[in-house]
Amino acid sequence: MATDFDWTRSQFHLPEGMIYLDGNSLGPMPLATPERVARTMQPEWRDLLITGWNKAGWHMKPETIGDRIAGMIGAEPGHVVVGDTLSIKIYQALAAALALRPGRGVILSDTGNFPSDLYMAQGLAKTLGDQTRLVTVAPEEVADHLTEEVAVLMLTEVDYRTGRRHDMKALTEKAHAVGALTVWDLAHSYGALPVDLAGCGADFAAGCTYKYINAGPGAPAFVYVAPAHADVAETALQGWQGHEAPFAFEHDYRPASRVAKLRVGTPPVLQLAALEAALDIWDKVDIEDVRARSIALSERFIAGVETRCPQLRLASPRDPERRGSQVSFHFEEGYAAMQAIIARGVIGDFRAPDIMRFGITPLYIGEADIDAAVEILADVMSNALWDRPEYKVKALVT
Amino acid sequence: MATDFDWTRSQFHLPEGMIYLDGNSLGPMPLATPERVARTMQPEWRDLLITGWNKAGWHMKPETIGDRIAGMIGAEPGHVVVGDTLSIKIYQALAAALALRPGRGVILSDTGNFPSDLYMAQGLAKTLGDQTRLVTVAPEEVADHLTEEVAVLMLTEVDYRTGRRHDMKALTEKAHAVGALTVWDLAHSYGALPVDLAGCGADFAAGCTYKYINAGPGAPAFVYVAPAHADVAETALQGWQGHEAPFAFEHDYRPASRVAKLRVGTPPVLQLAALEAALDIWDKVDIEDVRARSIALSERFIAGVETRCPQLRLASPRDPERRGSQVSFHFEEGYAAMQAIIARGVIGDFRAPDIMRFGITPLYIGEADIDAAVEILADVMSNALWDRPEYKVKALVT
Repeated sequence: MATDFDWTRSQFHLPEGMIYLDGNSLGPMPLATPERVARTMQPEWRDLLITGWNKAGWHMKPETIGDRIAGMIGAEPGHVVVGDTLSIKIYQALAAALALRPGRGVILSDTGNFPSDLYMAQGLAKTLGDQTRLVTVAPEEVADHLTEEVAVLMLTEVDYRTGRRHDMKALTEKAHAVGALTVWDLAHSYGALPVDLAGCGADFAAGCTYKYINAGPGAPAFVYVAPAHADVAETALQGWQGHEAPFAFEHDYRPASRVAKLRVGTPPVLQLAALEAALDIWDKVDIEDVRARSIALSERFIAGVETRCPQLRLASPRDPERRGSQVSFHFEEGYAAMQAIIARGVIGDFRAPDIMRFGITPLYIGEADIDAAVEILADVMSNALWDRPEYKVKALVT
Repeated sequence: MATDFDWTRSQFHLPEGMIYLDGNSLGPMPLATPERVARTMQPEWRDLLITGWNKAGWHMKPETIGDRIAGMIGAEPGHVVVGDTLSIKIYQALAAALALRPGRGVILSDTGNFPSDLYMAQGLAKTLGDQTRLVTVAPEEVADHLTEEVAVLMLTEVDYRTGRRHDMKALTEKAHAVGALTVWDLAHSYGALPVDLAGCGADFAAGCTYKYINAGPGAPAFVYVAPAHADVAETALQGWQGHEAPFAFEHDYRPASRVAKLRVGTPPVLQLAALEAALDIWDKVDIEDVRARSIALSERFIAGVETRCPQLRLASPRDPERRGSQVSFHFEEGYAAMQAIIARGVIGDFRAPDIMRFGITPLYIGEADIDAAVEILADVMSNALWDRPEYKVKALVT
């Protein structure tokens, strides 16, 4: 199947006059989403009330949607479950992985990991209170720090600031060679590039759905556990929805089978409907096509910016195989420059200390958008339009 | 202010011909909810995209809504935050409370607690891996088991099966007298009866919003931390939204001040809008009026059922002061009997092994509903209509 990108673009609301290069932070709204979410309220909640949990299938959505996601990331059916936030799902995966490597104390991660993953690991280490500790090294030094002390290698495949991409397969193999397990954060991978969890031998993974998948603000996360661990892995967050028989209301926890034990509480039915609407678009998309187009658009953007804006220095890897689906540049006044281009309709974002970040999302971004964005960026840079006080006021969320 | 219950009833969609006595499980949909939720998508998400986090106030909703909830449960502003599920919020509260009582090993709870709370405590004890253990006693024996070994008393104020209500103030005082802290689960309290956390000296509390508050399937939970602990309490789940400066993307966790540190991940914007719509109704409600009417309706229901259905035995306390806002009866064939009355338009639910449970929710239930429900229950019982095979098939969610 060749993906029809004119069709995919037609499936989104894209504000007139806006070039949206921030789909790596929050994707735009699919046309179908409002009606799909509305349906969970009218008629479902309105008419079914409590029986909606059975009759509208709400109760099983974390697993049925999990299977849809599994099919997109090279995971086996029955091994992905949806719910909570990415921080919670990373915590569950990490706790489960650590428990499978008793006697080892190190969680190895890198400074390119998303801070929340590091914070959750620090919190878990504190709660465990034994020899467990988080060791964080530079991304390029990860392989060298894989020793037999390492219990778990916890990495985000694609760096949220630079777009630098780890080699998931090679690092997983290296981790296994020293007896460590892996937890992969797919926040900037899922929907951005092909992911093959089973092919890479990944042990655990988690991801979010509000970025490249376009499931909306606060969309739920998901977690994957490999078949080899699914029966033996334990969960630290023993919620009733992860019990083998939640409606038996037993006093003691008995884990549900496989990944279902990583469910926690009552699923967010409205947000799940928005996720389903977003996935319907992905049903007609070949991620290999997305990847090819992402690389072509990224190369075009880099070439344009480097030609027109000599002040900007590429922060992303130059080799497209080593990048995710975003392009970042260093610029000392990056915050103000980003505000200046946002004021001109090109939406990217800024990440401290000096990174201007642009998401490349082929489902709704094309060559004309890239060229227009380069024009505006060149105008802002060549005329130093960023050097105005109004662009230097920091917003709460950047 | 005297609450206008005709007005409150007019604010809900109530299916024609249905008497809904299950608002203690999932409340009905307020009329205003679909439009309010739709607004988060159109125009907010559609037009604002990433800037919605600032411009639509999404980012601060967990705290602004938390303050609205605080005002309803006798909590101080700035000491309640919204998010995640009740299981997660209980876990955070319990972990924080335990950390404030080093050297003590016992989490004391009761067999009337909701199982997920017990499961989460078992999971936390396992992760802590030290002397921490969950001790569960009969509800009436809790006070006798408060010893100096107890670190935390973790209770649900109102029993989800029988409606039996603990004396929050007396038990909190007793816990404090032995040096223990308290974690109160308000699942069947918030919106059901007056709650005065500060007046009771409660240390931590958590609750949900999909029952009596009517915020919809999968509505988020909330957590409270008392001012005395707010600055020193730590969180086990160190998510980036609970960091002092989430958008500084530092590598090490620094807790946000007070209850804000109990935020975890990205908030569920659609579900939060449904919560806000539900709270708008509560702005015009005096919980003391709700309590008075709840007791009157409950007494009427008990009297009717005991007169007309001698097969049913009251499972709830007879003294209304010792009950929450539900009435339960024992009946050996309770599951089938509940299916039989549901088939006749009276919606309650069943909890193993033999409890028929009826939620009393004065915002939209009145005397005529209670009388009609008694009629139907009497018909089912006096004619043994429950004794039909179709009523004995177990559903997935009961």
